[in-house]
Amino acid sequence: MATETTQVNVLTAEDVLKNWQGHRRVTRRTIEAFPEDKLFQFSVGGMRPFSEMAWEFIRMAVPIVDGVTTGKWEEYKGSKPETKSELLRLWDVQTAALDEKFWKIPPHRFSEVDKAFGQWEMPGQATIQYAIDNEIHHRGQGYVYLRALGIAPPHFWERD
Amino acid sequence: MATETTQVNVLTAEDVLKNWQGHRRVTRRTIEAFPEDKLFQFSVGGMRPFSEMAWEFIRMAVPIVDGVTTGKWEEYKGSKPETKSELLRLWDVQTAALDEKFWKIPPHRFSEVDKAFGQWEMPGQATIQYAIDNEIHHRGQGYVYLRALGIAPPHFWERD
Repeated sequence: MATETTQVNVLTAEDVLKNWQGHRRVTRRTIEAFPEDKLFQFSVGGMRPFSEMAWEFIRMAVPIVDGVTTGKWEEYKGSKPETKSELLRLWDVQTAALDEKFWKIPPHRFSEVDKAFGQWEMPGQATIQYAIDNEIHHRGQGYVYLRALGIAPPHFWERD
Repeated sequence: MATETTQVNVLTAEDVLKNWQGHRRVTRRTIEAFPEDKLFQFSVGGMRPFSEMAWEFIRMAVPIVDGVTTGKWEEYKGSKPETKSELLRLWDVQTAALDEKFWKIPPHRFSEVDKAFGQWEMPGQATIQYAIDNEIHHRGQGYVYLRALGIAPPHFWERD
């Protein structure tokens, strides 16, 4: 094992935010691809409809960035969107909030271990990565819902 | 925008490999969760069976690490597994190969822009991240297949 490779720095905070926001654009297009009623009601195999997954992403993103920044882990307080346009509007508000708040994370907090929401103990960066990975995972499930509805999902590789 | 936060290094190569191998353990458990015939035949919405997705992950992982290491982008040459046990065996061989080969990536290649497989132009680290994200995305789809079959998928958050 070459020590110089194990410890080489491969991602800056800017790279992480850029990757996240790229994925969030794909997720927004996934929300948009659902017909209104299917977004809130359709699922496969007894799983949650995609609106519930998107709502989970919203309740994780900004609260996690706030928690990594401050060490205070507070649940998202807004109310749950009941229409597709409300959901997309809230999505855009969170996107802008992330762009603003991400830069307030003190550099040392990315590597500092904390217990996110009193439960998940890991470095700040790992908690952020968990939120991104969770979004990719569930959005992939939304793609199956769209295919089952005969709707082509957005291109996974288009992040702009 | 605080410059000190944008450029702070948040992930080392070791973190990236650790995250990837954690995800690969979840993917292996996902393959294992499928009954043999469903792994190769079942899907939802006209999509590929999960064995085809796992085969895609195999054709991406080591060839991408080799390409980032050497700048030579060569297709995976092995033959396609036709049983679950063959697929799992090949998975384990690739897992060990990744653990060995990842450390041979020259440090500067993580940030150097290259055209992966003559097609995808981005820094080495972004190509590696794309492979990880693609695996999370399609594995999430495998979870829907499992749920549709009445089978509980592995816990997403258990990476050991």
